[in-house]
Amino acid sequence: MLAHRLIERKRDGGRIEAGEWRALMNAYAASHIPDYQMAALAMAIFIRGLDREETSALTDAMLKSGAVLDFSGLAMPCVDKHSIGGVGDKVSLVLAPLVASCGVAVPMMSGRGLGHTGGTLDKLESIAGFRTDLSLADAKAQVERIGCALIGQTGEIAPADRKLYALRDATATVESIPLISASIMSKKLAEGLTGLVLDVKRGSGAFLPELDRGLDLARTMIELGADRGCPTVALVTAMDRPLGRACGNALEVEESMLALKGDGPPDLMEVTYALGAEMLVLGGVAADIDSARRELEKAIGTGRAAEKMQEIIEAQGGNPGVVEDPAVLPQASHVELCTAPRRGFVARVEPRAIGRGIIALGGGRTKIEDVVDPSVGFVITAKPGDWVEVGEPLATVFAGDRAGVDAGRATLRTAIVIADEADPPLPLVSHRVTQAGVELYQQD
Amino acid sequence: MLAHRLIERKRDGGRIEAGEWRALMNAYAASHIPDYQMAALAMAIFIRGLDREETSALTDAMLKSGAVLDFSGLAMPCVDKHSIGGVGDKVSLVLAPLVASCGVAVPMMSGRGLGHTGGTLDKLESIAGFRTDLSLADAKAQVERIGCALIGQTGEIAPADRKLYALRDATATVESIPLISASIMSKKLAEGLTGLVLDVKRGSGAFLPELDRGLDLARTMIELGADRGCPTVALVTAMDRPLGRACGNALEVEESMLALKGDGPPDLMEVTYALGAEMLVLGGVAADIDSARRELEKAIGTGRAAEKMQEIIEAQGGNPGVVEDPAVLPQASHVELCTAPRRGFVARVEPRAIGRGIIALGGGRTKIEDVVDPSVGFVITAKPGDWVEVGEPLATVFAGDRAGVDAGRATLRTAIVIADEADPPLPLVSHRVTQAGVELYQQD
Repeated sequence: MLAHRLIERKRDGGRIEAGEWRALMNAYAASHIPDYQMAALAMAIFIRGLDREETSALTDAMLKSGAVLDFSGLAMPCVDKHSIGGVGDKVSLVLAPLVASCGVAVPMMSGRGLGHTGGTLDKLESIAGFRTDLSLADAKAQVERIGCALIGQTGEIAPADRKLYALRDATATVESIPLISASIMSKKLAEGLTGLVLDVKRGSGAFLPELDRGLDLARTMIELGADRGCPTVALVTAMDRPLGRACGNALEVEESMLALKGDGPPDLMEVTYALGAEMLVLGGVAADIDSARRELEKAIGTGRAAEKMQEIIEAQGGNPGVVEDPAVLPQASHVELCTAPRRGFVARVEPRAIGRGIIALGGGRTKIEDVVDPSVGFVITAKPGDWVEVGEPLATVFAGDRAGVDAGRATLRTAIVIADEADPPLPLVSHRVTQAGVELYQQD
Repeated sequence: MLAHRLIERKRDGGRIEAGEWRALMNAYAASHIPDYQMAALAMAIFIRGLDREETSALTDAMLKSGAVLDFSGLAMPCVDKHSIGGVGDKVSLVLAPLVASCGVAVPMMSGRGLGHTGGTLDKLESIAGFRTDLSLADAKAQVERIGCALIGQTGEIAPADRKLYALRDATATVESIPLISASIMSKKLAEGLTGLVLDVKRGSGAFLPELDRGLDLARTMIELGADRGCPTVALVTAMDRPLGRACGNALEVEESMLALKGDGPPDLMEVTYALGAEMLVLGGVAADIDSARRELEKAIGTGRAAEKMQEIIEAQGGNPGVVEDPAVLPQASHVELCTAPRRGFVARVEPRAIGRGIIALGGGRTKIEDVVDPSVGFVITAKPGDWVEVGEPLATVFAGDRAGVDAGRATLRTAIVIADEADPPLPLVSHRVTQAGVELYQQD
């Protein structure tokens, strides 16, 4: 009866109260409310929206549907980063050990790839032996010991969100700002953080491509964080092209290991440093963004960040040798270079086409149960704005067989557009959003 | 993938094409689309609406998801009536045998009570032995032989509608004009009719209380009928108070039997004659409404209508003696009269309160699996506008035990409002809607 009444009210544009959200999400987590009722409610929410108080109450209800971590006894500050998802976005793999090596604990809970975007868990699991299914107690102990854990959303954390997220994916109710915000923040706030940094993507490969929708999402999440004593800062970053060069699970791990040792592609490093600097400032270990950035560069330069990654991998059962020698990662059997069919400017490298191309190669998911081939993907050296001559290299396809190579070539022909002119790409980091408002980001 | 794409499109206010509706409803009837996806779509339809073509295509898709009857070989015209549902609405029980006795076949498919409204099937089943679960073949043979069958929606007819209806009930997506219209018309058009008469209720006890919504619904269904060669006429009738005096399954059967023998309450007879006259004209056995009405009155007066009811009951395994002696119906063990607690005008007799009161007595359903006690209910002699003195009879409670009597009395105290003034009740039959438009109904 409760569900029916709330569906009816939201359908007609009414409000749902805090106590009702709590009862609803507890009942849903306990399977006392069927998926079809929650699907109808999700659609009503998608179309009618939620106001600030409702979004906050829903976040709280989902958070309290499960376990809450408590890092209050931790000697270090505790800051996490969340990205709205992209193609080639391996920032977490570099950022988590890097920030942890600078004295800020990072209890990072990540997801699997779904749709055109990759997932940090899939990437990590291309490291032989690496376990992402730690219990909360083990993850907590690891964070206390070495300052970082890289885990999946366990059944203990926000189970109502976990169920609702899968349902939204099947019912075309994903791209709702209040639902996205509540989903992300219910998990992040359950981590018991000192602060949170959000990477809000924009551009054709982003979840919400338009800047104004991205800013709305950032503001909503910043408010939710502020309401619960978790200062939150968002950076708007470019997802009109893949980030870095590698796209595909093991390929991205390799690029991340190189990045930790100072050999990362400039765009990946720029976004990583920008996010990491915010984390150090929020964690109180750096006075300002400039000094935070110098600290991060030093951690890379001295090898401290790479060592931290070895510690994390070892703690989670993986082969730490991957940091020094990425060749131990799964290798694709078929590797072929693709070159420019004409001269001109690289006008576009479409992230969605690349993301779908990885799925076609077997390296991504269309359903959550799909098994992923970690070795496949692309390394794309061409960047929008580059000038190329006929026959110059654009990208390399990594596939499991001949058919994969052909499919990969077809993907690249669609995804990489060469033209006589090219619009300038989006700035890598364009805006910084805090509770005080939105400002243009100062690029180096 | 189909369902996801269509949900997304309707969510954003787009259109669904005829071929897509067909694929969707066939897949849903075959359980290839889960209820949660259909629930999200139903909510998107509820909020965004369907245009005329979409409503027509959905009707068609649901109709073709199952068997279609064919009465083209029948010697008689074939006309049905559908009511949008009310309290005390036993018109079908009188109208079907009455019209059949005048030479128009009536293949009447009815539903069970749900929510505050009663259902014809539940009423019929209070007659000992009466079977409503005839197969389509048996129902067809009976209509050919005696001109009428009173049956439930079998699994063969519009199975997609059957599933969708149950889902809408659970997901607060019932009161949508395109969805109601498509649901009703997919079943009625599957009967292969010469014509159809709709009883669209208005007033506080109606499904859609407001006149303009009722008229919209009528127009939508009339268009759907016209598109498929089934001329359809709607009358708007009053549901601001119960129809007739009896409310409750066996009590309503008793009142209907009396009505067939010329002893029906005037309001029940008025609505029955108005709808029946339209059916005779649509069936082509009467030239105009006035002569049709005289024909109907004659069928009651001569006992022909009552005899037809005996034939139907006998054909469907029931005890035909109920027509002559309604005392064979289940009888409540506790019967008590309620009188006026003050003098004044009867200002209101609230149908929803009475309907819910029947459920409280065990005579109705909140879930489709609930078992119904046929003997309980109310006989309400007070009508809005009547003047009553203290202690004058208002109504009688029929209950299974002492607690039931008390609950029934409480219902009546809420439902029957006595005041110093009373607004005039709605006219019994207020509007007539055809393809040509809406006209005020000429009362006798």
